[in-house]
Amino acid sequence: MKARVTVMLKAGVLDVQGEAVRHALGTLGFEGVHGVRQGKVIELDLAETENAEETVKAMCEKLLANTVIESYRVEIL
Amino acid sequence: MKARVTVMLKAGVLDVQGEAVRHALGTLGFEGVHGVRQGKVIELDLAETENAEETVKAMCEKLLANTVIESYRVEIL
Repeated sequence: MKARVTVMLKAGVLDVQGEAVRHALGTLGFEGVHGVRQGKVIELDLAETENAEETVKAMCEKLLANTVIESYRVEIL
Repeated sequence: MKARVTVMLKAGVLDVQGEAVRHALGTLGFEGVHGVRQGKVIELDLAETENAEETVKAMCEKLLANTVIESYRVEIL
């Protein structure tokens, strides 16, 4: 089974990568870009288990996300 | 309006970040993780336009993705 984890910086945390992308899009001539946030997506190929969502959430808490400044979303595909 | 771009390494391209995550999950005691791929997600806050999807695809081709080794997916939210 597959799971997808999306990790984004929490609102209010300065996203320097996103700001860099926003600025670069402006210099390339793309107008009307009000804001950009960049995060990471992690696709996991897992053995079949019953409580996959809880397992993946534990992975997020322990490794995949820094929960002080990042929020995460788990999707079982 | 909001758009989300997901950029992943193409299949067959070595994903060292993903491999590092897979190894780290193993050392943390998570079993049954067969594979991990890590990519990036970029959330854009855009001015309302008619052909937003084409605009965002152009952003991907010019800046957001390296189309030699990465594939991208655009979602208009």
